[in-house]
Amino acid sequence: MTSSHSPGLSAPPHYSCMKRDPHSAARAGVLHTPHGAIPTPIFAPVGTQATVKTLTPDELQALGASLILANTYHLYLRPGADLISSLGGLHSFMRWPAPILTDSGGFQVFSLEGLRRVTDEGVVFRSHIDGSEHEFSPEKSIEIQEKLGADIIMALDECPNPLDCEYNKIALARTHHWAERCLRAHTRQDQALFAILQGGIFADLRRESARVLTSLDFPGYAIGGLSIGEAKSQTWETLDQTVPFLPEDKPRYLMGVGSPEDLFEAVERGIDILDCVLPTRLARNGAVFTSHGRLNLRKAELAADPAPIEEGCGCYTCRNFSRAYLRHLHKSGEVLGLRLNSIHNLYFLLSLIHRIRQAIFDGNLADVKQEFLSQYIPVEDTKQRYGNLARRRKPAVSAKSRIGNAS
Amino acid sequence: MTSSHSPGLSAPPHYSCMKRDPHSAARAGVLHTPHGAIPTPIFAPVGTQATVKTLTPDELQALGASLILANTYHLYLRPGADLISSLGGLHSFMRWPAPILTDSGGFQVFSLEGLRRVTDEGVVFRSHIDGSEHEFSPEKSIEIQEKLGADIIMALDECPNPLDCEYNKIALARTHHWAERCLRAHTRQDQALFAILQGGIFADLRRESARVLTSLDFPGYAIGGLSIGEAKSQTWETLDQTVPFLPEDKPRYLMGVGSPEDLFEAVERGIDILDCVLPTRLARNGAVFTSHGRLNLRKAELAADPAPIEEGCGCYTCRNFSRAYLRHLHKSGEVLGLRLNSIHNLYFLLSLIHRIRQAIFDGNLADVKQEFLSQYIPVEDTKQRYGNLARRRKPAVSAKSRIGNAS
Repeated sequence: MTSSHSPGLSAPPHYSCMKRDPHSAARAGVLHTPHGAIPTPIFAPVGTQATVKTLTPDELQALGASLILANTYHLYLRPGADLISSLGGLHSFMRWPAPILTDSGGFQVFSLEGLRRVTDEGVVFRSHIDGSEHEFSPEKSIEIQEKLGADIIMALDECPNPLDCEYNKIALARTHHWAERCLRAHTRQDQALFAILQGGIFADLRRESARVLTSLDFPGYAIGGLSIGEAKSQTWETLDQTVPFLPEDKPRYLMGVGSPEDLFEAVERGIDILDCVLPTRLARNGAVFTSHGRLNLRKAELAADPAPIEEGCGCYTCRNFSRAYLRHLHKSGEVLGLRLNSIHNLYFLLSLIHRIRQAIFDGNLADVKQEFLSQYIPVEDTKQRYGNLARRRKPAVSAKSRIGNAS
Repeated sequence: MTSSHSPGLSAPPHYSCMKRDPHSAARAGVLHTPHGAIPTPIFAPVGTQATVKTLTPDELQALGASLILANTYHLYLRPGADLISSLGGLHSFMRWPAPILTDSGGFQVFSLEGLRRVTDEGVVFRSHIDGSEHEFSPEKSIEIQEKLGADIIMALDECPNPLDCEYNKIALARTHHWAERCLRAHTRQDQALFAILQGGIFADLRRESARVLTSLDFPGYAIGGLSIGEAKSQTWETLDQTVPFLPEDKPRYLMGVGSPEDLFEAVERGIDILDCVLPTRLARNGAVFTSHGRLNLRKAELAADPAPIEEGCGCYTCRNFSRAYLRHLHKSGEVLGLRLNSIHNLYFLLSLIHRIRQAIFDGNLADVKQEFLSQYIPVEDTKQRYGNLARRRKPAVSAKSRIGNAS
């Protein structure tokens, strides 16, 4: 029950590129961290409250997860960074032996519309749990993240509506200033502090963000402010206008993106790390991935269907259970259903990203993409627009309950 | 995804006694069924809706479960017995390869106060899910249980308030008549149909119930109508007045009982099988068993406690997680907490019943009991009285929602 983590004794995280796709900006590599190597490109399941919902660490590792994300905002409020630190840090607390990434808390705080006030100094906000007042400054966010002890931590950023040009200009200056303060405040050499680029869907702002932040020489760069209101085409255009201005020798992280079809689009544009609540959130809503698209387990026609979610799928769920049983569990509100669907969806996405990585090594990424997309029917783009901040990344709290017990 | 179960081809379930305790009525044996041997005495976890809440079949087997219970009332209403039958029966549907016991549905129907009407013919009741009207007769209960296909099935009984003497007299005659009709209706030779003794806390009624039902020569006998309102001392006195009138060569099942201290009391009185929702229900409420008594994980003093629930416990939860982490999961409403607590509580009870069985073979049951009780502080008897039917056995629906989605 004590920590296996020794802050400061490990080599700092660093990235090595191993192979480039000749036909796109895709690349395969490894991000070395004190808790092990992360093969890239990689998809990171989200463990907001120090648990990837419904699953044990053993199950996550069996599914092929090599990096998970936890949320600074949630853990700061409950159970608290000092408590986690006193128990040996996040790895020890949640018994996850492999790499962890924590976000800065900025995204969650900015999702608390009406409950926060931003100044150049930082953000004052009210807890969604009990309404108590708190402040995040760049220095405070780094202090909390050092206590949590993740391998990769994020600079505090301001995350505006990506379509609001005027506000993005103001927020961008603040984000850059905060990134500099985070860099100065950061002391743990065993953690990699990534900067977050902002600038909405505006090419000139994104370029400016890349210029300013790369001049500060961070060990990695995240692209924030996307997948939260813009059309998919705008997401990819923005990536096209941003990634070429990032250094080749540093990892690139696209925040909050992770539909199956998105993995190809992002990796082709040079992204190394993605995270998204989608696979586990869909699972809890009874929606599961198949090679033909999403399947809704609530459908009446599945009531007596003896087939697994997907024939030939190697996950525990498909090796054992029928669609009929999964539908029954979902309709009966049984927790086992949430688990089995989560196992399948994460297995699907993690297998897909591993297949994409292998395709980069094999030099046939375009073929693998075409083969996948010839079968897979994505949810229509109109349904993929995000009217609020609550869809892909983990907001502070769901739309249902603003002040209350978020689970 | 097809059934491995071949109705009618297997030998009928039968019991062999292997060892008797010289100082009590305790006995160790084996109940042979078409899905494997059940070592007795045994504790059966409850899987109301074809799932022991939060756990996979693999986990249950790893915990040492060799028999689970499922509820006829719930499965009849959702997803339906015909549907489960079309998918190969309950074993195949829920992928549980070992023995299953189904109750008759009577207990749940009688827990639907105000929503049911009983006659000598059977019970008319309204579904707690959608209010639709249904009828259970003895024949109907057997028909459903044959479709579900459990190894052990139960005769339809009427389960009254155990303290109401006059009503117990009326209900007893009905229960006996229904048992006879169940016996006539039952056709599947691979299933053992157990009768249920009733009679409340009244020794003469219990003796009468034993006399009538044993004359019909069932392959096993259950003691129903206890642990639902009477004091603990009355439960054990009733058992003292009942078990001696049951045949030695048939298994005896005490329904809805299963606190750790109860296991000793019941087994000493000659009980072979027990079931109870307690370990999994307590787990979901954040209460876990230790060798010193129950521990409430909500307690503030556990917030930073790095110890496991119990030092030296071999369960997955205790081998990996601190009380602090389990408390955090519980307070955050995280499903993983329900799982980890359920794993611990079932491991605790199943290990205890295995220890009790070994003690019978070793001839030192009294010593093992004394050793256990010298440390274990039970919840006070006053708190163990049951004001309604909802505590130990699975009622049709929790007190919270009468008509609605029971989970």
